[in-house]
Amino acid sequence: MRHFCLVLSYDGTRWRGWQRQGNTSLTIQGKLETLLSRLLDQTVETAASGRTDAGVHALGQTVSFRADTALSCAELLAALREYLPEDIGAVSLRETDPRFHARLSAKEKVYAYRVWNSETPCVFERKYVYRFPDPLDLDAMRDAASRLCGRHDFSAFSSGKKTGKAATRTLREIRIERAGEEVRLTFTGDGFLYNMARILTGTLLEVGRGDRTPESVEEILRGRDRTKAGFTAPPHGLCLMEVRY
Amino acid sequence: MRHFCLVLSYDGTRWRGWQRQGNTSLTIQGKLETLLSRLLDQTVETAASGRTDAGVHALGQTVSFRADTALSCAELLAALREYLPEDIGAVSLRETDPRFHARLSAKEKVYAYRVWNSETPCVFERKYVYRFPDPLDLDAMRDAASRLCGRHDFSAFSSGKKTGKAATRTLREIRIERAGEEVRLTFTGDGFLYNMARILTGTLLEVGRGDRTPESVEEILRGRDRTKAGFTAPPHGLCLMEVRY
Repeated sequence: MRHFCLVLSYDGTRWRGWQRQGNTSLTIQGKLETLLSRLLDQTVETAASGRTDAGVHALGQTVSFRADTALSCAELLAALREYLPEDIGAVSLRETDPRFHARLSAKEKVYAYRVWNSETPCVFERKYVYRFPDPLDLDAMRDAASRLCGRHDFSAFSSGKKTGKAATRTLREIRIERAGEEVRLTFTGDGFLYNMARILTGTLLEVGRGDRTPESVEEILRGRDRTKAGFTAPPHGLCLMEVRY
Repeated sequence: MRHFCLVLSYDGTRWRGWQRQGNTSLTIQGKLETLLSRLLDQTVETAASGRTDAGVHALGQTVSFRADTALSCAELLAALREYLPEDIGAVSLRETDPRFHARLSAKEKVYAYRVWNSETPCVFERKYVYRFPDPLDLDAMRDAASRLCGRHDFSAFSSGKKTGKAATRTLREIRIERAGEEVRLTFTGDGFLYNMARILTGTLLEVGRGDRTPESVEEILRGRDRTKAGFTAPPHGLCLMEVRY
């Protein structure tokens, strides 16, 4: 058995997320495993750094798998590039230590949420940005963001059921930058709960619009009550940028 | 009657080009005229700076039309933004002099052709770039490009039937730049014949790959024979960037 680490980019628009379920041709994991199993003539199971939801994109999703094959990495990478659909791209493939596991070995993840903060149309990037034309106070958003960083129980910012220790993550940085009509929120942390990046984004947008104060996010954190946080920003603005090991 | 100038962006992927023909819901002009006629309750005919072919994009296509309406430009622009599909964006709208005509008044057009010059996948921009992974000699391409600039009969670089004076255009500049894995060709000229930007691109890519010498493009120009020029690069890499008046 050899062990591999594959980096994938994908446009999540038409996919029901990463995780295999039901009809395997509708999820990215299903599509990838079907292809790898066919190419390598054996059942191949893959592990990603984490699931991405339906509609969420990835620039650098990382996937590990084991297989018994004589193909070189270059040959297998070329085959993946040949047969993967055009909205899933095989960026790189390398052989790894048997102990490497895409999820368990991950140290840090970076997500970017792209907001199109303008009334003007955004024709070419429309599938990758969330249109939010209301004026945003970026300083207030940055103030709130700094109060969210650190090691906390983030259950108020998750649609999942985990609480306490299981919902505790370290959010190292939230960078908020404007470039023209786009506002980009970049989240770096050791892990993210279900919908966490999208609920953080929705809450920060509400702060930016003046619906909430920057200080109020501390109370939300402490309350551990999902209903007190902001809306869940839609999936298509979110992209898993990088997984660090 | 009032006279208007509208700037449009569009993603040409699913459209049969600019020009109205047959089923009006399949072309950008057909879609726009149907909408304007409905919004303004009168038959509205539009003129663009020029047609774009099926699959070609526009960042700044310019369109003129006349209408009898009491709506302000801001109101009409908002209505267009509300009802145009998400792959056609109304960038701006202003009232003009009655003598303004989007095609007849145009002084200069800028087209960009985007080439993805790499084996690595290009997931997010895949509908806007042409994948051409062969190594390219950009200096040879720039040498050829400089020989194509100037006032010439470009009939060798057109799929149209015009010849002589009717096929004479001034190509002011072809800029060729690399940014990472992308090579961008930017064409500026007083007008472009049918398929001209795409055939110039195909020919320059053949020079870049070493199939033709830079000098050979002068002979192609002189010969006025379409079959001597390079291939017609596919439409989806091309974008009408700007029309200058």
